[in-house]
Amino acid sequence: MGRVTERRKVIRIRDGAVSARPDTLVAEEPLEIRLNGKPLAITMRTPGDDFALAAGFLVSEGVLAHQQDLQNIVYCAGATVDGSNTYNIVDVKTAPGVVIPDITLERNVYTTSSCGLCGKASLDAVRTTARWPIDDTHDAHGAHGGEAPPVRLDPALLARLPDRLRAAQRVFDRTGGLHAAALFREDGELLDIREDVGRHNAVDKLVGRALQNGALPLSRTILLVSGRASFELAQKAVMAGIPVLAAVSAPSSLAVDLALESGLTLVGFLRGASMNVYAGEDRIALRAAAAQG
Amino acid sequence: MGRVTERRKVIRIRDGAVSARPDTLVAEEPLEIRLNGKPLAITMRTPGDDFALAAGFLVSEGVLAHQQDLQNIVYCAGATVDGSNTYNIVDVKTAPGVVIPDITLERNVYTTSSCGLCGKASLDAVRTTARWPIDDTHDAHGAHGGEAPPVRLDPALLARLPDRLRAAQRVFDRTGGLHAAALFREDGELLDIREDVGRHNAVDKLVGRALQNGALPLSRTILLVSGRASFELAQKAVMAGIPVLAAVSAPSSLAVDLALESGLTLVGFLRGASMNVYAGEDRIALRAAAAQG
Repeated sequence: MGRVTERRKVIRIRDGAVSARPDTLVAEEPLEIRLNGKPLAITMRTPGDDFALAAGFLVSEGVLAHQQDLQNIVYCAGATVDGSNTYNIVDVKTAPGVVIPDITLERNVYTTSSCGLCGKASLDAVRTTARWPIDDTHDAHGAHGGEAPPVRLDPALLARLPDRLRAAQRVFDRTGGLHAAALFREDGELLDIREDVGRHNAVDKLVGRALQNGALPLSRTILLVSGRASFELAQKAVMAGIPVLAAVSAPSSLAVDLALESGLTLVGFLRGASMNVYAGEDRIALRAAAAQG
Repeated sequence: MGRVTERRKVIRIRDGAVSARPDTLVAEEPLEIRLNGKPLAITMRTPGDDFALAAGFLVSEGVLAHQQDLQNIVYCAGATVDGSNTYNIVDVKTAPGVVIPDITLERNVYTTSSCGLCGKASLDAVRTTARWPIDDTHDAHGAHGGEAPPVRLDPALLARLPDRLRAAQRVFDRTGGLHAAALFREDGELLDIREDVGRHNAVDKLVGRALQNGALPLSRTILLVSGRASFELAQKAVMAGIPVLAAVSAPSSLAVDLALESGLTLVGFLRGASMNVYAGEDRIALRAAAAQG
């Protein structure tokens, strides 16, 4: 399943010079996620880390929250036209006793019978499915038991993260077609990085890996994404218990609203020493920023 | 429904200077699309052009192909908590006699009962639902009746389009959060441009508007997208009969495969006088490119 990239012929035009050559492209293939044998969703993704992707997707949907909620994940190895396994269908089995919520699967948005669908309904859906609050006093990676001080990030630390993301990206430079998501500890140490043709998949892969490692909720971490911060990405951060979401590009209005409501710190336009803080500014050491000016 | 942008408070950090100010963000809200009264899909979109978005979505799904397939589209004006219409649910009524295909709605990918899901299945799904071939001999915008010569684009014409897209973008400069899609005639004239927080929505809005205007199939046009070219965007181009898809960024492997199979010309990394042609190079005047070098 090392099918992260594929080769295709390309005709390059460079200032009048025309040449034919092979090019490296990011691979895109459908993945069907089944839950206890029942088809649940299909996502277009870059092959690789498929079990983590499926697990992370189910964290976002409120099905899984702890390592022990997961019994196992297998590729569905049915026959195809040529008898081979396509490795494009995974089945997630939950542990006995795990209650499956009523998943509409339409991007976790519910519609009331009275026709009232709005951004507010999307926020409500996250609030009702979230398994834990964003809580800085819990320290999953350090001192257990004792109460930890609130997360407080120096803007100079945040400013260094995009360069570290790019340095760690393994595939992007070759194809230009991948979104990246990276998880950092509050001291700036890189914990994990995932890439995918779909940016929501990259985050699902990160979160799913954390679930498999028993690291949820991801307290005291920073999630950095290479593009924009949509509602969907903010939702995934909240569902994983991540306190800080930073994006290289712009957030949407609904992502900001969700951050404000759920206590998520949301940073956008993180470029060099410049950034915008849209919510949860108590976790950003603004005085440190001013002192450095 | 002029809710394309919204204002939120932001704390700006610029090289040590900290300031609080209002910021303009791209609006993101859920839209539920109903087909003849039955809920079909929910997409997170930027409000505006909702009827076009719904119509274009149904073109991509193989439900609508001609203006007369559409009876009408209305906002579902049910009561909400505060009694107002959220303008977030639309109902599309098809004309009598329109046959609704069996839509799985899971990104138009079908799963065989034998577990055979793969990129090939995605390509097959497009082939079986496409309502017309990509056909250069049909000229929707010009001389009807007579046979037209094949589309043949000078690379210098393609090279000018991204600047024209950016010049025409109305919201991007203010928020940085929007994807754009533009439709050009083969002579480079801008026909339409749409922006959305979701890039697939921007293309659906373009295609839906064309359906409403009786302009499908969009023969002899160029679709330009501001980001990457995924399978989903190539699918939307094929379903609308668009012969040329150009992207500022990278295509995925499956987008290239679909283009090769369906006769779509696919151009990626369109930046200045440089571009990569991944499929359908017969529509690109490569000799003209070489002559200009």
